[in-house]
Amino acid sequence: MKKKSRFLQTPIEPFAVEEGLTAEALLARMERISFQGRNLATAHHIWQRMLQDDVTIFLGMAGALSAGGLRLIVSHLILNRYVDCLVSTGANLYHDLHETRGQHHYVGSPHADDAALADDRIDRVYDTYASEEEFCSNDEWIADFACTLETRNYTTREFLYLLGGHLWKTTGLEGILTSAYRANVPIFCPAIADSSIGMGLSQARQKKAGAGYIDIIGDIVESANLVIRRPRTASIVLGGGTPKNFINQASVQAEFYSDKVGGHRYALQIVTDVPQFGGASGSTLEEARSWGKLATDAAQVSVQADATIALPLLASALATTAPPLLAKRKQPAFTLGRLMTVDGLTVPSDRYEEVNEPAV
Amino acid sequence: MKKKSRFLQTPIEPFAVEEGLTAEALLARMERISFQGRNLATAHHIWQRMLQDDVTIFLGMAGALSAGGLRLIVSHLILNRYVDCLVSTGANLYHDLHETRGQHHYVGSPHADDAALADDRIDRVYDTYASEEEFCSNDEWIADFACTLETRNYTTREFLYLLGGHLWKTTGLEGILTSAYRANVPIFCPAIADSSIGMGLSQARQKKAGAGYIDIIGDIVESANLVIRRPRTASIVLGGGTPKNFINQASVQAEFYSDKVGGHRYALQIVTDVPQFGGASGSTLEEARSWGKLATDAAQVSVQADATIALPLLASALATTAPPLLAKRKQPAFTLGRLMTVDGLTVPSDRYEEVNEPAV
Amino acid sequence: MKKKSRFLQTPIEPFAVEEGLTAEALLARMERISFQGRNLATAHHIWQRMLQDDVTIFLGMAGALSAGGLRLIVSHLILNRYVDCLVSTGANLYHDLHETRGQHHYVGSPHADDAALADDRIDRVYDTYASEEEFCSNDEWIADFACTLETRNYTTREFLYLLGGHLWKTTGLEGILTSAYRANVPIFCPAIADSSIGMGLSQARQKKAGAGYIDIIGDIVESANLVIRRPRTASIVLGGGTPKNFINQASVQAEFYSDKVGGHRYALQIVTDVPQFGGASGSTLEEARSWGKLATDAAQVSVQADATIALPLLASALATTAPPLLAKRKQPAFTLGRLMTVDGLTVPSDRYEEVNEPAV
Amino acid sequence: MKKKSRFLQTPIEPFAVEEGLTAEALLARMERISFQGRNLATAHHIWQRMLQDDVTIFLGMAGALSAGGLRLIVSHLILNRYVDCLVSTGANLYHDLHETRGQHHYVGSPHADDAALADDRIDRVYDTYASEEEFCSNDEWIADFACTLETRNYTTREFLYLLGGHLWKTTGLEGILTSAYRANVPIFCPAIADSSIGMGLSQARQKKAGAGYIDIIGDIVESANLVIRRPRTASIVLGGGTPKNFINQASVQAEFYSDKVGGHRYALQIVTDVPQFGGASGSTLEEARSWGKLATDAAQVSVQADATIALPLLASALATTAPPLLAKRKQPAFTLGRLMTVDGLTVPSDRYEEVNEPAV
Repeated sequence: MKKKSRFLQTPIEPFAVEEGLTAEALLARMERISFQGRNLATAHHIWQRMLQDDVTIFLGMAGALSAGGLRLIVSHLILNRYVDCLVSTGANLYHDLHETRGQHHYVGSPHADDAALADDRIDRVYDTYASEEEFCSNDEWIADFACTLETRNYTTREFLYLLGGHLWKTTGLEGILTSAYRANVPIFCPAIADSSIGMGLSQARQKKAGAGYIDIIGDIVESANLVIRRPRTASIVLGGGTPKNFINQASVQAEFYSDKVGGHRYALQIVTDVPQFGGASGSTLEEARSWGKLATDAAQVSVQADATIALPLLASALATTAPPLLAKRKQPAFTLGRLMTVDGLTVPSDRYEEVNEPAV
Repeated sequence: MKKKSRFLQTPIEPFAVEEGLTAEALLARMERISFQGRNLATAHHIWQRMLQDDVTIFLGMAGALSAGGLRLIVSHLILNRYVDCLVSTGANLYHDLHETRGQHHYVGSPHADDAALADDRIDRVYDTYASEEEFCSNDEWIADFACTLETRNYTTREFLYLLGGHLWKTTGLEGILTSAYRANVPIFCPAIADSSIGMGLSQARQKKAGAGYIDIIGDIVESANLVIRRPRTASIVLGGGTPKNFINQASVQAEFYSDKVGGHRYALQIVTDVPQFGGASGSTLEEARSWGKLATDAAQVSVQADATIALPLLASALATTAPPLLAKRKQPAFTLGRLMTVDGLTVPSDRYEEVNEPAV
Repeated sequence: MKKKSRFLQTPIEPFAVEEGLTAEALLARMERISFQGRNLATAHHIWQRMLQDDVTIFLGMAGALSAGGLRLIVSHLILNRYVDCLVSTGANLYHDLHETRGQHHYVGSPHADDAALADDRIDRVYDTYASEEEFCSNDEWIADFACTLETRNYTTREFLYLLGGHLWKTTGLEGILTSAYRANVPIFCPAIADSSIGMGLSQARQKKAGAGYIDIIGDIVESANLVIRRPRTASIVLGGGTPKNFINQASVQAEFYSDKVGGHRYALQIVTDVPQFGGASGSTLEEARSWGKLATDAAQVSVQADATIALPLLASALATTAPPLLAKRKQPAFTLGRLMTVDGLTVPSDRYEEVNEPAV
Repeated sequence: MKKKSRFLQTPIEPFAVEEGLTAEALLARMERISFQGRNLATAHHIWQRMLQDDVTIFLGMAGALSAGGLRLIVSHLILNRYVDCLVSTGANLYHDLHETRGQHHYVGSPHADDAALADDRIDRVYDTYASEEEFCSNDEWIADFACTLETRNYTTREFLYLLGGHLWKTTGLEGILTSAYRANVPIFCPAIADSSIGMGLSQARQKKAGAGYIDIIGDIVESANLVIRRPRTASIVLGGGTPKNFINQASVQAEFYSDKVGGHRYALQIVTDVPQFGGASGSTLEEARSWGKLATDAAQVSVQADATIALPLLASALATTAPPLLAKRKQPAFTLGRLMTVDGLTVPSDRYEEVNEPAV
């Protein structure tokens, strides 16, 4: 008689359609199907495990997620502390600011006549439009704000906290920047120079000599010092890009100065790129282990999917499953002045320090 | 004052997270976001429109959807007549038969040791396993059944109806083949020769001379005659492949014999391939218009997504929104003997006919 | 002093630009770079190894390669016996016939107005156009030819040999079908029902009762019997689809009847699909090992690339490197009548046989 | 008689295999095939047109191209002034420095045991390895160099020029950084904070207070001022990422201050991402028109391909076709001190200026 193979343990359970299934029920029924559906269900589990463990949860976001309608999800994740630190492209923060300022992106078509759009000064992002005139007013608004600041270097982390505060005081509206400000969640933007926020800062120089200086290397030091102070970390990545690598780099750089750091304990990425061309965005979490970016026994999953499908489902499921975990969660407490602190410990931006004494 | 551009009509509405959202609520909130999330919400709308119109709805399925845990969704769609005619790869029907016969696919890993799997005679489909031994028993089962049939040519449509009936009588269990049998929904399998069902049929010849003959060209004639009889059609495609083209071909071939045929009135595809390499699986629905596969004013949407994420969400939403539409729906009524009929009209497989007289 | 890791053996050698590099020199300089460039160079090596070994080389082609300008490369590979057996989608054979009959595909644009194209009855394949009127004339031509044949079942292998012969006699021009006819290279077309060749055959029935019957299951038997007779095989796949699986299936089916068969000894695929969604087109050659489709020690490589870039480079390099190997090559000799023979052994289509006696 | 459609003008000319074809002959035979092969041939043409026109040619590079064996191609393009200004990710410059310093990347496997690699401190980039120990020595080397500089803010453009000079003086070896230094080609690195060069700079702060400060916003000002001074531009992009957008941003920002700027006159991108998910890397050049990043009548082409296949072929073809054009080319002349100049005009980094007077 045939002996059952050790490989055949857990049968696939076909998804059973039913009326009225909620997001978490959908994901529960996707746990034992295959391919990216199963991976998305696994992502739900891993995120819950992150919330139950004592880890600093980094969220990276790249791609046009804010313009594309996901900014209030990210805001929700920040405000309710599903995550502790955001690393974003500049565009996502800029498009968030655009809407928080009361303006809109618009439903468009990927088959638009781009010359006609250009005539109307409409900027297209695949199937989504925005007014260039309104974008110019944002640039001006950012430049004006930057001119109100003391003329010195700012890390993006400090600048974005101040910007979020100004935006909150001006609008009182929810968004990524304002929620991060209110929840004391730090935001890093390593490629700020490649964004309209950077353009706004560059225009500040036109208005006031010495304005618009950013200490981007200070962000590296701060992010690594944060990991040195709280060496247990988790990484959630939407879309790859500079945020994905910056989160990993913080861990790798921290390890250089502290042997308590051992790579992320949990990692979850929702990406559309594939690994076969060698780019970082599509690189696997297995590969990340070779670098020590990920602990070799980390719980991890890659979901190959557009975040505009995967994230609404995932975040809605967490809205049911996470609250009890959030209630018990030991989350890091930040202050986000010129000198950042975490749990009372200073996090310098000008030198690496493995301090354990509380900040004064 | 600036005049608003005609392009800026409908603002993006960011997805708002909330506890307890059901599948249809999720999709409703994805209608005014961007990218593939919006497309999936649009797919939900278009499918509802199909159900409200007097169209024959074709469903094409390619990729390892049955092994991957979606077979009971497809079965549900058939049994409740969300669709009227299935075109499938052989593998999807075979893997369906495998599970309906009480066997399983298993949760596996894409990083498995394939030599070790080969030693255990375990076949891997990305992250899913199956026993080759059990597969061989299916081949035998199919061969044995084929030997019970009169020795003549069978269209895949006729053979699969008979196979589904035998499977239903043997097991009494739900699945794609058995639901199609029970609901009198025809199944075409144009690439049956490239599948284990084909292998089973080839083994029938070993057991009985003259067994296992399939009239694949008869399927072309039958499918086009069906469109001639009911020229208003809709196409739903999961994953591209031969089913996608076969459904389009039926329309193009029908148009050759009847000027009432004018391409699908609705088209919806969930694919992972892209158009840039010229393959049919990834080809756009715009391109399909040039061929007349699609009416030039057809409602259509392409969702670039893995069906294992998109279909559970879409089908679950329809489970709430579709029942009232299904209740009123004027669906085509088939008989699936050697000579197929639709709404009482014969649908020959040996010659094209534009008949309007009822069958006798 | 640091000990060098066993993993660091072969340095990357950056590609050095030089004037006048030929195709084989390009690939030689890509051997020690990374990613898909290296894989393409490896493909060149593996193909050369196939030509030096005593293996039957299968070539599978899917995607719009003939319409897209690669048909004379495939014809060249057949005529010079770089390959021994072709498995193709119907479209590639049909588009080949279209051009061999003196008609053309045309340079077009992916941004065309498809409604305008439809008005002119122009069919678009991404950036390539064809006249539907000319396509209809092909269908008619195929139907007329099919009517000249004795009314019985034909395997696609037999039918395509006859069609190629007729085309050669009519046109005297080079193409895939005519070269295969002249070189006695068998062609299988498992999804013929999903193509315009199938449509032509279906129209033959209109002209003559009993015409246009294809024994697609016979193709399974024949292809497996071929592997039983020559168990050492190699697989070259362009674009996945039904040909990729049919070539593997021949090996798997053959193994069922003969324990001398042990999977392909060499495998090379140029594909644009990825494995993460579970489809066969994008499946890895590692996965193929679990099924026994590939010998566990087979030399293999996947190139993730559009064949319209990869194949011109690869075939041009082989045009220099392969001729000495082709001169010495022990290639299988076929006759392609109703009963196929290979090296004098019969290859039945109606039953599996492990015969070793010469055909009579 | 049928009238020929206006759409059917230029027949596809199938690629004809021949022994000894050189790179430019390969591309010449790909001009009238389809899909990405045709696009690559078009890219060859457009690049030649750029060289014949009076435009500033920007080259953007993202993805692991240097580690992957393409750094000497980029170096060749810089040294021979096929391009005038490089925008790169930090990783590509860092991996270039790594090899110019006499170290290597190594041929590896995507299926490696990453835990074993981690044990040996080997970092994996898909199928390519590097020694972490050597990487640490680079970081140190960069930090040491940064400490030799006056303590003030540096644009990446200025810093990378100084770094390239130091590397050239130390090694005398060819590479991207050293060629850019020797050819006076400016390099911008907008996401330097997300790279090991940034990590090296951050470590400089450990060694010397005030070291390692980068003025990333100054790069925005400088790059836009460059476009203001030479408003006719061309964009060549490998792989998307921050460089792609930064090149476009320079044009958009310049247009804000000068109405002579009207978007790139030529654009060519070789990317693996697709547009359907809304990310900038995969965005089309049509979309770029809506933003004014591209002149509405610009010659442009996107090639969907891995640069490790496409670039060796393209650069080798240009090595034959470009030299006569390069000989006649009117290329911009740069000086790259603290204050950059182009053609004798100053290019400030602290404020936007539309100056036309020569620098003093």
